[in-house]
Amino acid sequence: MREAYHVELEQLADNLAAMSVQVAEAMERATRSLLEADLGLAEQVISDDAKVDDARAQCEEQAYALLALQAPVATDLRTVLAAIHAAESLERMGDLALHVAKAARRRHPEPVLPDAVRPYFAEMGEIAVKLARQTEQVIKTKDVEAAKTLESDDDEVDDIHRHLFTVLMDREWPHGVAAAVDVTLLGRFYERYADHAVSVAKRMIFVVTGKMPGYGSNEDV
Amino acid sequence: MREAYHVELEQLADNLAAMSVQVAEAMERATRSLLEADLGLAEQVISDDAKVDDARAQCEEQAYALLALQAPVATDLRTVLAAIHAAESLERMGDLALHVAKAARRRHPEPVLPDAVRPYFAEMGEIAVKLARQTEQVIKTKDVEAAKTLESDDDEVDDIHRHLFTVLMDREWPHGVAAAVDVTLLGRFYERYADHAVSVAKRMIFVVTGKMPGYGSNEDV
Repeated sequence: MREAYHVELEQLADNLAAMSVQVAEAMERATRSLLEADLGLAEQVISDDAKVDDARAQCEEQAYALLALQAPVATDLRTVLAAIHAAESLERMGDLALHVAKAARRRHPEPVLPDAVRPYFAEMGEIAVKLARQTEQVIKTKDVEAAKTLESDDDEVDDIHRHLFTVLMDREWPHGVAAAVDVTLLGRFYERYADHAVSVAKRMIFVVTGKMPGYGSNEDV
Repeated sequence: MREAYHVELEQLADNLAAMSVQVAEAMERATRSLLEADLGLAEQVISDDAKVDDARAQCEEQAYALLALQAPVATDLRTVLAAIHAAESLERMGDLALHVAKAARRRHPEPVLPDAVRPYFAEMGEIAVKLARQTEQVIKTKDVEAAKTLESDDDEVDDIHRHLFTVLMDREWPHGVAAAVDVTLLGRFYERYADHAVSVAKRMIFVVTGKMPGYGSNEDV
């Protein structure tokens, strides 16, 4: 039974790693669709989101089966519950990439972003994708050290996000209210994505090591 | 063992009901602090949020204990997992009320909202609080019928939220970009709160009846 538990837990971890790749690719494409007003890419992200939802449902079913058949206790139980939480956060990350893609589609062929704020989104997008890819690496390599940089990357996204507000609040913002509304929501989507990525990565460390790394008081909305 | 399971599940449900009341009150106060620029109320919501976090941790511990000691299967297992998800969503609802209160505090003594959009927030706040209170009622009365109106209430919040965007995007919006940014984020906080409330109420129906009501494709970020 212990053997079966570990085989099943490994399969569950593999599926969570695959979900991390899915949502990393979704955010990569969504960011490109946003920066380059690429409608095809936006459509791809939008139609691919159902796959992320399916993957989450499958992870949950695996976790349910594991709980029902193996009735794990103590750390093993917490590990399975961490996997369920991780699957939920990964699905949300997919939803946030979807929101970015929908914004790109809504304004197409106009670009959503005024030129002045494009670099901020390019950078937030890059870090967000990197965070999701690190999650996959933590699982594949079980190298917890690789995940150490996660929090500082997330802090970087928070800094950019905050800076974006000072740009928006500047009395000289010349791009109008509609653009400001888009930028506000998009900034929030990236900030939430990065935050979820950190929480997923931490839960993954728990799934592969059985130990939870120290938790900051991350916003978790 | 079945007896112990049901007693413990009932205690867990009671605690989730208490959390629903906490987050309903938080949103009620946060909305009043927003509408009346009431700093004291805002501070109260901000300092009370730690209690919601504690309540969530306690619910999770109860659920863990239930899983570890009773090893429920089939519907019983899904019920406990539904309770864990519900506790997570309730904590997020508390966070969203906290964000509203922080916005009120940030702009104090200035009002955050231009007069033109105050009625929208008054209404969204009222429905949001009502949704959270319905969740409590579902548990207390086990009256699933009472929860039937949830989805239409949530649709109402979505309608107001959408309408808010048409107000913002109007070329005549005379209140400047900073107010538009605040209104955009606040609108999103209410929309997310209502959405989480519906998902919690549905999970509660599952917790008290063992049956999941039909799920729409609610946004779930």
